Amino acid sequence: MTARCSVYLAVSLDGFIARPDGALDWLSVVERPGEDYGYQSFFDDVDALVLGRKTYEVALGFDAWPYAGKRCVVMTHGTPTRRHDEEFFAGAPKEVVDRLSREGVTRLYVDGGDVIRQFLAAGLVDDLTLSIIPVLLGEGIRLFGATGRDVRLDLVRSRSFPTGLVQSEYRVRR
Amino acid sequence: MTARCSVYLAVSLDGFIARPDGALDWLSVVERPGEDYGYQSFFDDVDALVLGRKTYEVALGFDAWPYAGKRCVVMTHGTPTRRHDEEFFAGAPKEVVDRLSREGVTRLYVDGGDVIRQFLAAGLVDDLTLSIIPVLLGEGIRLFGATGRDVRLDLVRSRSFPTGLVQSEYRVRR
Repeated sequence: MTARCSVYLAVSLDGFIARPDGALDWLSVVERPGEDYGYQSFFDDVDALVLGRKTYEVALGFDAWPYAGKRCVVMTHGTPTRRHDEEFFAGAPKEVVDRLSREGVTRLYVDGGDVIRQFLAAGLVDDLTLSIIPVLLGEGIRLFGATGRDVRLDLVRSRSFPTGLVQSEYRVRR
Repeated sequence: MTARCSVYLAVSLDGFIARPDGALDWLSVVERPGEDYGYQSFFDDVDALVLGRKTYEVALGFDAWPYAGKRCVVMTHGTPTRRHDEEFFAGAPKEVVDRLSREGVTRLYVDGGDVIRQFLAAGLVDDLTLSIIPVLLGEGIRLFGATGRDVRLDLVRSRSFPTGLVQSEYRVRR
């Protein structure tokens, strides 16, 4: 059994996941006490994470390590110092998925723009949950990149929230 | 009274309105007999159109002129031949909106990537209805561009269709 690879991400309506400098301040337009837009439920359902190096560094800067209790693999060619039992992996997306699948992982949370694009291009993403934030940033770091082909998606569900956030879950057609 | 400026457009989930060569074949994934996703109702509600030159040329290639019965202004610095009572305008977005408003237009359908981006950057768009098509194209002509600032939007409504199309209507905050 190959682990199901899932993406769960917020994007501006114009397709950015961060400002040019990585800032996420614009997410505050949808922040409401007690509303996590299904994140905890999603997080509870994954066994392990595969993160990009930049996303990892952002997470290291948080007050608390956000991935506590989950196996966490960072895709990097560097040799960072281990801080929270995380693992480092320098191979291809397919290799890390195969390895984690062999080791019993059933659902993988794939995070970070570069890593998501690599997984998408390699045909490894099974589902995407995108929360569209009602703002145009005009510039920033994009979620999507070249795919080399059309990638067809099936809509699983879509829901909107009083904050104007529209969350759609897609399954990638194989 | 300034005319309300409206955008009504289909985009791929990765934010493209056309393939690199302008092709729209990928829209076929949501084409169903008898389902126009609210287009006719929107079209009936506008008095006039402001089109970009490229969008205009695409429309000229259709079997029937798609804007029959509506006043149609094409933004161009060229001097094309008039074929369907269309008008040509070489000025700024604000000027065309002011002129049409003075002449009694109450709602304007703004179409074409370049023109929409100019209208957005000039703060002239009042509402956007975006139909997100469940496909990643990987490359193509983008809808959104630089805005020079954050543009905040209010969600008016969002609905999804059995084809997987998610249509969200936003009002631009002034």
